[in-house]
Amino acid sequence: MKDTVFIDACFGKKTSYTPVWLMRQAGRYLPEYMKVRERAGDFLSLCKNPALAAEVTLQPVDILGVDAAILFSDILVVPLEMGMQLKFVAGEGPLFPRPILSRGDLDKLVVEEAAEKLSYVYDTIKLIKEKLPSDKALIGFCGAPWTLATYMIEGSGSKTYSKVKKLLYTDPAFLHAILRKVTDVLKLYMEAQIKSGADAVQIFDSWASALEEEAFFEFSWSYMKELSAYLKGKYPHVPIIVFPKGISGYLDKIDGEFDVFGVDWSTPLELAKEKLGSRYVLQGNMEPTRLYSQKAIDEGVRHIAGVMENERHIFNLGHGILPDVPVANAKYFIALVHEITKR
Amino acid sequence: MKDTVFIDACFGKKTSYTPVWLMRQAGRYLPEYMKVRERAGDFLSLCKNPALAAEVTLQPVDILGVDAAILFSDILVVPLEMGMQLKFVAGEGPLFPRPILSRGDLDKLVVEEAAEKLSYVYDTIKLIKEKLPSDKALIGFCGAPWTLATYMIEGSGSKTYSKVKKLLYTDPAFLHAILRKVTDVLKLYMEAQIKSGADAVQIFDSWASALEEEAFFEFSWSYMKELSAYLKGKYPHVPIIVFPKGISGYLDKIDGEFDVFGVDWSTPLELAKEKLGSRYVLQGNMEPTRLYSQKAIDEGVRHIAGVMENERHIFNLGHGILPDVPVANAKYFIALVHEITKR
Repeated sequence: MKDTVFIDACFGKKTSYTPVWLMRQAGRYLPEYMKVRERAGDFLSLCKNPALAAEVTLQPVDILGVDAAILFSDILVVPLEMGMQLKFVAGEGPLFPRPILSRGDLDKLVVEEAAEKLSYVYDTIKLIKEKLPSDKALIGFCGAPWTLATYMIEGSGSKTYSKVKKLLYTDPAFLHAILRKVTDVLKLYMEAQIKSGADAVQIFDSWASALEEEAFFEFSWSYMKELSAYLKGKYPHVPIIVFPKGISGYLDKIDGEFDVFGVDWSTPLELAKEKLGSRYVLQGNMEPTRLYSQKAIDEGVRHIAGVMENERHIFNLGHGILPDVPVANAKYFIALVHEITKR
Repeated sequence: MKDTVFIDACFGKKTSYTPVWLMRQAGRYLPEYMKVRERAGDFLSLCKNPALAAEVTLQPVDILGVDAAILFSDILVVPLEMGMQLKFVAGEGPLFPRPILSRGDLDKLVVEEAAEKLSYVYDTIKLIKEKLPSDKALIGFCGAPWTLATYMIEGSGSKTYSKVKKLLYTDPAFLHAILRKVTDVLKLYMEAQIKSGADAVQIFDSWASALEEEAFFEFSWSYMKELSAYLKGKYPHVPIIVFPKGISGYLDKIDGEFDVFGVDWSTPLELAKEKLGSRYVLQGNMEPTRLYSQKAIDEGVRHIAGVMENERHIFNLGHGILPDVPVANAKYFIALVHEITKR
């Protein structure tokens, strides 16, 4: 087990301050990131280039002083290496030009081979670990089965998720078959990330909020739980962080074998503390747009630090940092968290 | 006060069955609607044509057998008549090409004159009331101040709401000034709808979920409460339905002078019942994509009817009906609700 403030906090141990990192901290708000991205060509080329991906992963550790690095990659490299075409259209987000329409489409997708083809991610992790300071942790990650399956069926982002939901209510067995295959790949993928050096892992279920309660537990959470239980069983020393976004109405029924529950900004931290705080360490959840103003950062950090005083907590935003946030404000946030939570 | 099953249910009186209507029931899933829309030209021309708008308003009453008609219009006619340019771009949604950027932009917008220019809406209501069967109610509506202000500042739909949130955290006084002006127009607008014959009104806060808890109560809910208290004070016999979408984490702090709380599908009805059911009639909340399958409708209706047995309830979807839903399934839903809830 890695001995850092971040990992200690993931396991609920007392630390001398509350560790902090930012979702999407290796990203477009950093001029240093933009320079490397230009060198790489496009977004996907950067994901596939271990040297450059490692470089941008390490940038926020140096620039902001965060307590953990998070692997630079994208959740959609998994469906890509399962055999799906993937395009990143500038200004429009990711696109699968040939989404899954039939069982034939699903049958063509590979499992073991996908996990092998993702070797550029494992190489990136190894390079990061060579350079990461010993007092910092590296977080690996993947998308949750539900979020990945949704992309693979919708083909792109969606406001209504009507394709995947049509499947859910008219042919649930087929949707389960897709989720099963994705989950099988993710087990191998996350194992390989851990073996390559990831000190902790986060599973992002960005589209959890697309589902009503009953469907969420059947089609999203059950696979999240299966994946985390599998990893916990084999690698108990590696903390698992889950981040099902936008499900504040369903917290009563959340359970499973993981260490940290990531709270998004739309879920009041008081509510998460009441429902989950005794069972899990909480991570989050400052409103990302507070980073537009130092006054709003002050108020947000003090509020959260107050709610989580004497509780098990990792500071973070409640969603990814936005591209037009001033770097100075991101630095201010990190420094303020360290200062205010010093014990 | 209009004596219908729907209005009785809004006031929590016992009715012989649970009334039901659908958000966006006068819409693209109906071939009859598409024909009228073609005759009108474009969407905005349909909104501004009282004869045709009245015709599409009445269609679902005849075709589906819903217990209430809802005025056919759009929430954005309000900023339009306040003086903002508005375009509906096919396939892309509404667009304000010149969003509010400065106090000068806000100063140019009108209040009393806007309420007067919206006379085509009042004319539509009068025409609907001439033809609406006496056992059905007519629901008027508007967008909540927060949702309208967000459109006026963002200029279009948004995934991150970063413009309006930047304003919120850096110049809250300016955002309050915008919300104040919009609220003033809405008071006059909703009064005129009621005087023209609306039997009940619903206030849609479609983008309530864009805000963290503290900001929601300051920038959204306070104006919703002001508007509903104003209308309740003058027209106590007209039920008010509020629909702040996606705020299941904030239900503990909901209060105000209104009659019905519209529950979106992401908020478990059990949770809404626990937090609000003793104080308000609840409306909702079947997952709209359940309408893709009659089996899913069966399960959804039976679940909701079970949760709301002996409670004060109006059946509805938890968001608008989607354009690709089979009309037969919408009919099936309405008939099933009437059958199952018969007392």
